[in-house]
Amino acid sequence: MNDAILVLNAGSSSIKFAVYAHTEQDLTEYLSGQVEGVGVAGTASRLHLEDHQSAPVSSDLGHGVDHDSALRAVLEHVRSSLGELTLRGAGHRIVHGGRHYSAPVLIDDAVLGDLHELESLAPLHQPHNLAAVEAVRRVAPELPQVACFDTAFHRTQPAVAQRFALPREYEQRGVIRYGFHGLSYERIAALLPEYDQRAARGRAVVAHLGAGASLCALHEGRSVATTMGFTALDGLPMGQRCGNIDPGVVLHLQRMEGMSLEQVERLLYRESGLLGVSGISADMRQLLSSSEPAATEAVELFCYRILREIGSLAAALGGLDALIFTAGIGEHAAEVRERIVNGLHWFGMELDQAANLNNGPLITTPESQLSAWVIPTDEERVIAAHTIALLSR
Amino acid sequence: MNDAILVLNAGSSSIKFAVYAHTEQDLTEYLSGQVEGVGVAGTASRLHLEDHQSAPVSSDLGHGVDHDSALRAVLEHVRSSLGELTLRGAGHRIVHGGRHYSAPVLIDDAVLGDLHELESLAPLHQPHNLAAVEAVRRVAPELPQVACFDTAFHRTQPAVAQRFALPREYEQRGVIRYGFHGLSYERIAALLPEYDQRAARGRAVVAHLGAGASLCALHEGRSVATTMGFTALDGLPMGQRCGNIDPGVVLHLQRMEGMSLEQVERLLYRESGLLGVSGISADMRQLLSSSEPAATEAVELFCYRILREIGSLAAALGGLDALIFTAGIGEHAAEVRERIVNGLHWFGMELDQAANLNNGPLITTPESQLSAWVIPTDEERVIAAHTIALLSR
Repeated sequence: MNDAILVLNAGSSSIKFAVYAHTEQDLTEYLSGQVEGVGVAGTASRLHLEDHQSAPVSSDLGHGVDHDSALRAVLEHVRSSLGELTLRGAGHRIVHGGRHYSAPVLIDDAVLGDLHELESLAPLHQPHNLAAVEAVRRVAPELPQVACFDTAFHRTQPAVAQRFALPREYEQRGVIRYGFHGLSYERIAALLPEYDQRAARGRAVVAHLGAGASLCALHEGRSVATTMGFTALDGLPMGQRCGNIDPGVVLHLQRMEGMSLEQVERLLYRESGLLGVSGISADMRQLLSSSEPAATEAVELFCYRILREIGSLAAALGGLDALIFTAGIGEHAAEVRERIVNGLHWFGMELDQAANLNNGPLITTPESQLSAWVIPTDEERVIAAHTIALLSR
Repeated sequence: MNDAILVLNAGSSSIKFAVYAHTEQDLTEYLSGQVEGVGVAGTASRLHLEDHQSAPVSSDLGHGVDHDSALRAVLEHVRSSLGELTLRGAGHRIVHGGRHYSAPVLIDDAVLGDLHELESLAPLHQPHNLAAVEAVRRVAPELPQVACFDTAFHRTQPAVAQRFALPREYEQRGVIRYGFHGLSYERIAALLPEYDQRAARGRAVVAHLGAGASLCALHEGRSVATTMGFTALDGLPMGQRCGNIDPGVVLHLQRMEGMSLEQVERLLYRESGLLGVSGISADMRQLLSSSEPAATEAVELFCYRILREIGSLAAALGGLDALIFTAGIGEHAAEVRERIVNGLHWFGMELDQAANLNNGPLITTPESQLSAWVIPTDEERVIAAHTIALLSR
C-alpha cells in the first residue's frame, strides 16, 4: 500500500481529519485526529493525532489559529506520520449539495462557486466546510479534492417527500426538504445486506442518533423519506436543537417575545433540544445518569419523538422490516434503544435485553417479527471510498 | 320546547350563527345562518338565515358593518324567527383557551380578561371571537355567555405530547402544543361508541379535514396527541396553510429572501397549502376536478402528509383500531379517502369501494382488520350542549 487519502470534516471551531491507506481491494484507516479551537479568538488551538502504532501526538498550535494555519499543521503532522504512503487527494464532508449534487464530485472552480452559493442554505456549516477546501487549495495546491455531501443520498426520494406545501416559486428557489446525515445512511445501507437480507431488500428505518439526530426510511437501500428537512434543525429534538416545531412559534417569538432573528436562531440551534428541556446538559450520557426529573423528561421526549417519527416513516415505507441504530447515542445508549424498541412492541418488535446491553448487533429476540440492530456508522470511510473512486476515473 | 341557545362562531370577516331549541332531553337545531363581509371596509355585508320551515332569508346590511351592528342584525332576525322560543344564552366558539381552560366556561369579566390575554397566541382568530362576545354584551346584556374552546379537548394529553424541545421558560410562558379542532373531536368521540365499540374503547385516529385540517389520536375517547401545535399553522397542509415546516425555513425566508414577519405570516397562512402547491385553488373540489398536474400534486401531497401523520399518531397510540373521516373534505371527498385508506393497506385496512362512494358510514370491508368510517361532525351542537349544561347548573 502506497496511496493514501486525507479525509476532512471541518466545522466552525474544529477540523476532524483521518488518513486512509488503500489499494484497489483494500481501504484501511491509517491515522485520525482533530484540531480544536480553530478560528476562536483568544482560545489556544490543539492538534491531536493517533496512528494506531506510535503514541498519540498532542500539539499546541497557539492562539488565534485560522483554517489555513490549522490545515498547514494537519498536513505537516500527517506527512511526517505517513512513512511510505503518499497523499493522493483530499475528501471533504460538505453539508449541502443543494438539489443539483446528488453524488460526490471532484472540486474545481465552478463546483466551488456553486457550493459557495449554497452557503445561505446552511450558514452554520457550509462556510466552514468550504474554508477547509480553500485552505487545502492554498496549502497543498497539488492535492485534488472531492466534495461528499450530507444531502446527496436523499435525492432519490419521491418529489412528494421532498416538497413543502409552499408556493412553487419557493421550491424553485431551493426551499425543499433536503435531509442530512446522508453519508452515514449510505454507510448503513451498504452494510445492511451483511446483517439483514430481508430489510436490505425491503423496508428499514435507520436512526442516526448523535449530537445531531435524524431518521431515514430506506426502501431497497435507497432513501425514500427522512426527518430532517430544509435545514439540520428539523425533525427529532437533538442535543441542543429543537427539531420539528410549529412555524408559528418562530413568528411568535419575534412578534410577542420581541426576539431578534439572531436570538431565535441561537435559541433553536444552541439552547433547545436535550439541553433546553433538561436545563442540565446536551449530553445523553449525563442525562441518563442524572436523577433529576427534568433530565428524565428530556430523555422521554427524545424517545417519544423518535417513536412518533418511526411511525411516520413506516407509513412512508408501507410497513417495516427492521430498525437500525447508529451514531453515538444509537451505538452506545442501551437505555434509549430499550425505550424505543419497547415502544414498538405493538408493531411486532421484541427486545433481547442481554443483546441490547451488549450493543447488539441484533437486539431483538428470534421470535420478534421486526428486527432491530446496532450497526456502527463510519462517514469518514464513505468519504475516503468516494474520493478514491473519483480520483481513479 | 320554550328555551333556545344562540351559537356563535365569529371569524375575521364572517359570523356564523345557529339557534338550538332544547328541553332536558332534546336538542334540535332550529335555524342557522351567517353574516358575511363583517368589518371589511367598502364591502357590502349580507345576512343569510334558514329556519327549516319558511323560505330562506337573505338581507342586505349595507357597507362598513362592524361586529356590533352585525350582531344587532343577527339578534333582530333571530328573535323575529323564534316564535314561542326564548333565547336563554349564547355559546361561542373560542379558538384558544390556553393551558388553563380545559373545559367550557361561563364568561365573566375575569374570564374575558384571561381570554384577551391569549390573543397573542392566536392573533388571527381570538380577537374576532372575542369581538362577538363583547358585541353580545352590549347588544343583549341580559344573555349569559359561554366560551367553548378549540384547545380544551387536548388538555388530557400526556405532557410529553404537549412539549416542544425548548428551554422550560418558554413552556412556562405558554409555548406548548395546544392542538385545535377540539370541539369537532369531542363530537366524534361522543358518537364513536354508536359506530365502533372496539375503537371507542381502544385506539382511533380522527381526520378532521376541512379548510383547516388536523388529526387527533383518541385513546378510550380521550385525546393523546394531535397534529396541530402551538398555532393552527402546524401539522397537515391545509387549503391555504403550509402545515408542518422546518423552522429553519422561517429564518431563511426572513434572512435570505428579505421577507418581513408580516410577509412570512401571509405566505404561510394564506398563500401556501393546497393553493400554493397547485397554484390553482385552495378548494379540494376544484383540485379533484382539475386535470392540471400541479393540482394532482397538491392532492397527492395532502394525502401523503396525512398518511405520514397517521403513522405517527398510531405510534403514539401503540397501534390503531379505526380511522374516522370528518369535516368538509373528510365527509365528502371520496377520492381523498380512497387514497388514504389504500395507503394504509399494509396496516390492515381494506377499502369498500362502493361504501366509500356512498360516504359510508363504514368504508372498509368486513374482512378489513382496521375499520374506517365517515362520521359527520357538528361543532355547533357541541357548543349548544355545553352552553345549556353550564347555564342549568
